[in-house]
Amino acid sequence: MPATHTVTAYDDELRWLMRRISEMGGLAEGMVADSLKALIEADTALAQRVISEDVLLDRAEREISEKAVLVIAKRQPMASDLREIIGSIRIAADLERVGDLGKNIAKRVIAVHTMAQPKSLVRGLEHLSELALTQLKEVLDAFSSKSSDLAVSIRERDDEIDAIYTSLFRELLTYMMEDPRNITACTHLLFCAKNIERIGDHATNIAETVFYVATGEQLSDERPKDDDTANVMAPPVDD
Amino acid sequence: MPATHTVTAYDDELRWLMRRISEMGGLAEGMVADSLKALIEADTALAQRVISEDVLLDRAEREISEKAVLVIAKRQPMASDLREIIGSIRIAADLERVGDLGKNIAKRVIAVHTMAQPKSLVRGLEHLSELALTQLKEVLDAFSSKSSDLAVSIRERDDEIDAIYTSLFRELLTYMMEDPRNITACTHLLFCAKNIERIGDHATNIAETVFYVATGEQLSDERPKDDDTANVMAPPVDD
Repeated sequence: MPATHTVTAYDDELRWLMRRISEMGGLAEGMVADSLKALIEADTALAQRVISEDVLLDRAEREISEKAVLVIAKRQPMASDLREIIGSIRIAADLERVGDLGKNIAKRVIAVHTMAQPKSLVRGLEHLSELALTQLKEVLDAFSSKSSDLAVSIRERDDEIDAIYTSLFRELLTYMMEDPRNITACTHLLFCAKNIERIGDHATNIAETVFYVATGEQLSDERPKDDDTANVMAPPVDD
Repeated sequence: MPATHTVTAYDDELRWLMRRISEMGGLAEGMVADSLKALIEADTALAQRVISEDVLLDRAEREISEKAVLVIAKRQPMASDLREIIGSIRIAADLERVGDLGKNIAKRVIAVHTMAQPKSLVRGLEHLSELALTQLKEVLDAFSSKSSDLAVSIRERDDEIDAIYTSLFRELLTYMMEDPRNITACTHLLFCAKNIERIGDHATNIAETVFYVATGEQLSDERPKDDDTANVMAPPVDD
């Protein structure tokens, strides 16, 4: 029964793509969680491990892309299968970037620890990363279950991450004003916060891909992916 | 002659994708150049125009993605055509992000102009953006001509952008240390510089896509896309 055999091999290929995306997601989430842990606990060995794990995600992205193109060429999939395969390419690219952002946080661990971190800042960063990681985890579940409703609700929650990021941005500017010795460390923390906010944006991208895979339609109303800090001014310093 | 007709229509579709990518590239380059001009000349009207143009890129990306998937489903392209079509989807995503980064620079124009900008900073940012825009322009030419050699040489030049960005980062930290009244504006300039550095990274991404489209191989040695500022420390302030 060659027809059945072909279908089965094809199904295996699609399942392989889904499984690799899921593995990439787990790895990316782990890297981000560990980078935050390293940042909070000044754990440079853990930071180093995160940095070294990034190649695994790069390799996984290349493998997924190659496999996806092979499957398209060989199977000539139609409609929803084609969208799922194209979606895998897109999501793999987002997850590779999430790993880069985790690595970038890990690389800042030493620079940040020139300053004793105020508890509110640490808590703010932890909260921000928990939200971003929850978004990432849920949106990958939405991809597994092809749930367009879940994708839409995840996309809308990105506002919460943006709001917390903006408040951290303001707080970090204030610490710099209060004591110029905090400037270097606070600047690196600003970039860490920005990286976490970007992880939320990648979850939003993935939500849009999931919606497209599930429905064949694109979410057309623009959700701005840049941050809301453009006009944040710190309180003036006392002269 | 239906066969000829089909081939011609298919060629038209491929040309349409290439033309739209090229138009997106022109628009994204224009947005970035204008955002820098607005930043340097404190031109808030120009900044506003950049912000409003972003929807055009979002729309173009969606159109290109939709068309690409339709062409794959209808024509079942093999090998190099398939890579070109998948490449269009990837490049459109990169160009959409370049537009977002230009918009983000434009949004910071007001915050930055609370501070008189030292000439060296302005010149540094101009130089950085000229390099990034040259990379972007050349990599889109490389896509048009399917030149893998050009793609490789563009990818290697990203180091230059990273080096200038790192030096600007250091200079901005120093200005903040010297006068805490500069902190807000310098922080926004830091993010502007970071955004330009990211535009260079997107040119690098596109170079990798062009190489893949032209050769069917992926550039395997990792070129880190994150920046080199992670350990930059500003000179200590005088107590």
